[in-house]
Amino acid sequence: MKIRTDFVLNDIGQLLTIDGSGSSGIGVLADAALAMENGKVVWVGFKNDLDTCCSVSDTTEIVSAGGFIVTPGFVDSHTHPIFGATRQAEFAMRAAGADYEDIAAAGGGILNSVKRTRLASDDLLRNNMMHHLSLMLSNGTTTVEAKSGYGLDISTELKCLEIAGEVAAIVPQTVIPTFMGAHEVPDEFKGRADDYIDFLINEVNPLVRDQGIAQFVDIFCEKGVFTPEQATRYLSASAQQGFSLKIHADEFYDTGGAAVAVNTGAVSADHLLSISEENIELIAKSNTVATLLPGTALFLNKPFPPGRKLLDSGASVALATDFNPGSCFCDSMPLIVSLAVCQCGFTVEEALVSATANGAAALGLGAQKGRLIPGFDADFVIWNSNDFRTIPYHLGNPDVAVVYCAGRKVYST
Amino acid sequence: MKIRTDFVLNDIGQLLTIDGSGSSGIGVLADAALAMENGKVVWVGFKNDLDTCCSVSDTTEIVSAGGFIVTPGFVDSHTHPIFGATRQAEFAMRAAGADYEDIAAAGGGILNSVKRTRLASDDLLRNNMMHHLSLMLSNGTTTVEAKSGYGLDISTELKCLEIAGEVAAIVPQTVIPTFMGAHEVPDEFKGRADDYIDFLINEVNPLVRDQGIAQFVDIFCEKGVFTPEQATRYLSASAQQGFSLKIHADEFYDTGGAAVAVNTGAVSADHLLSISEENIELIAKSNTVATLLPGTALFLNKPFPPGRKLLDSGASVALATDFNPGSCFCDSMPLIVSLAVCQCGFTVEEALVSATANGAAALGLGAQKGRLIPGFDADFVIWNSNDFRTIPYHLGNPDVAVVYCAGRKVYST
Repeated sequence: MKIRTDFVLNDIGQLLTIDGSGSSGIGVLADAALAMENGKVVWVGFKNDLDTCCSVSDTTEIVSAGGFIVTPGFVDSHTHPIFGATRQAEFAMRAAGADYEDIAAAGGGILNSVKRTRLASDDLLRNNMMHHLSLMLSNGTTTVEAKSGYGLDISTELKCLEIAGEVAAIVPQTVIPTFMGAHEVPDEFKGRADDYIDFLINEVNPLVRDQGIAQFVDIFCEKGVFTPEQATRYLSASAQQGFSLKIHADEFYDTGGAAVAVNTGAVSADHLLSISEENIELIAKSNTVATLLPGTALFLNKPFPPGRKLLDSGASVALATDFNPGSCFCDSMPLIVSLAVCQCGFTVEEALVSATANGAAALGLGAQKGRLIPGFDADFVIWNSNDFRTIPYHLGNPDVAVVYCAGRKVYST
Repeated sequence: MKIRTDFVLNDIGQLLTIDGSGSSGIGVLADAALAMENGKVVWVGFKNDLDTCCSVSDTTEIVSAGGFIVTPGFVDSHTHPIFGATRQAEFAMRAAGADYEDIAAAGGGILNSVKRTRLASDDLLRNNMMHHLSLMLSNGTTTVEAKSGYGLDISTELKCLEIAGEVAAIVPQTVIPTFMGAHEVPDEFKGRADDYIDFLINEVNPLVRDQGIAQFVDIFCEKGVFTPEQATRYLSASAQQGFSLKIHADEFYDTGGAAVAVNTGAVSADHLLSISEENIELIAKSNTVATLLPGTALFLNKPFPPGRKLLDSGASVALATDFNPGSCFCDSMPLIVSLAVCQCGFTVEEALVSATANGAAALGLGAQKGRLIPGFDADFVIWNSNDFRTIPYHLGNPDVAVVYCAGRKVYST
């Protein structure tokens, strides 16, 4: 029996189905077509086989990709897009010689964003977030994780997650909110990080869970922020409350955050610039996705994460922007893919798999997003190029032509 | 007497006049206006002084910058935009482990571009170049240097320079063609670099000069390409023939190319990833502009150029993309400015001066381009931002809103 389809993308020069993992998982199909029904992929194959396999009727919309390449939309699995103000002044200070940690110690850094976010109106937060998501869309990102964590009190954290939910309902992308009350110790709990963890576990997490405004929690495990013991305690308690887990691990120092991720069953461990050889092996044997954020290394002039080593170890590696106002004001997944290839030892194919299917896995969406195979959401990008290798090759100026979410055209240049 | 003006840009939140050099030379004017006449700047000042200083008549066009920032257009003083084909296959090979120099040794690299450029039709070369210049324009670049050097025989080199001239007449930007026959030793002269230098000096340079199709010559002084002695001989002879001089110097190895630049009176020495401490001092005391191309370091995973050291030495430092199909397929000056700040020790202000006024100096246009002060060309960018520090801060996705060349709107988002 032929497959029913209400929308066909035909004449695809190269279709990246991303039907597996690693370099071999990119699944390039030349002269392809993609058939969809109700916003989901129902068939992929050679365009010459379309009529044999699919029932294309008068009501089927047929669009030509003009011989260009088509990829799944990017899944940006780590961003902080809900904040009151950008921080270009700190960026300029750092450029003039101050260190990121100096700035944080002087009252800048995350706590500066907290101050501005607590003061911001709902409208400002909503408009800022929508602006950033629209820039992401123009760079081919169709699924975005969105962390809270610039409130650090009950009302602001809940407000930010509610706004993320409101924005999710408006923008074309899929937005996955994450509760990150454990982003930093707020002034009210200065020197009492353990008390703040108790507060989160006992007072904030239950509200977030009961309101159903976030599926994931995240914590910043780092020297001077939360210890591995605090992270373990927070994540374990959160898991018992029904949350899925993420962790900012081993960004500036090897504190063993990656091991915390594996031991608590976190879906992803993110950053990993300073991960130890031992913990590379540990994460490789686990189900935890290693999420790399090379834009942050570039932005802060830190060593790039050990992408090649993680890939060689067999770890599942995702790529994301870490978009945030302090340490990486980058909304461009194509640039992240370029950085992974140019600076972190990824092949072109590995980088594209990491920025799509593996990003989806890092959000628990591994069976729904990041691949263009039957059953998956029809989120895809048509590129103004006929060779997928140009995606990272064209540095800093992506050739995104048209973006579709759930089979609907949502952006075109 | 009041200054006559046919076009006023008013309500500029921050106008970067770039009226000096270094960090202090950025010349930020808040609440400013810019008055122009016949495509040139005739007055800059506070918008409240506009009526007092300028004779604004009924025929004067007045445009509001809406409180946004305005900067001079970028001057990209080092690009190779005339070629027959992109080289993403080599990029992917390098990502999979091959070295740039390995690929060159295996018949790839520049000679691959030469093969494809010799085969290309005029139309293809023209269309490719126009496409790349249009992408540059959308990134705020209003002046572009354009090197030949993928022909390496008389007819193709002349053809490429002629096409650059044709494109210059069509595109809104100012295009400055450079003859770079000495980009590589072509197969016909394999092992006979000195003979090829003779051929260039005696047969090609005179034709280029007589046809008036390039003011600059350039040479790739590098281990395995042309020696400092050959570079000195070529540049000295070219100077006697009336050309201005540029040199690709100390990119992969410290061969002393920077000293060749100073000794031959070159207008600029470009790349300098491997420049010695001694030659930093030498170039600082000279009139030669040190042109840094940090995109190439990123693209090839080489150490970034020593920007801070050059700036501290007092050298005049320019920033450019090095846009080319092999070692840096980047047309984005905003990304180059970000890289200079994040990876090469520039302050935000220094990076912006280097990407505008100093780029102009590297093209002998220091009295005409790259600043917004009376007498200079009205080439400028209105940014979708109210703080100039966001230009490098917004990594990988420039907030260019509108671009003007010679007082004429030529691009808007």
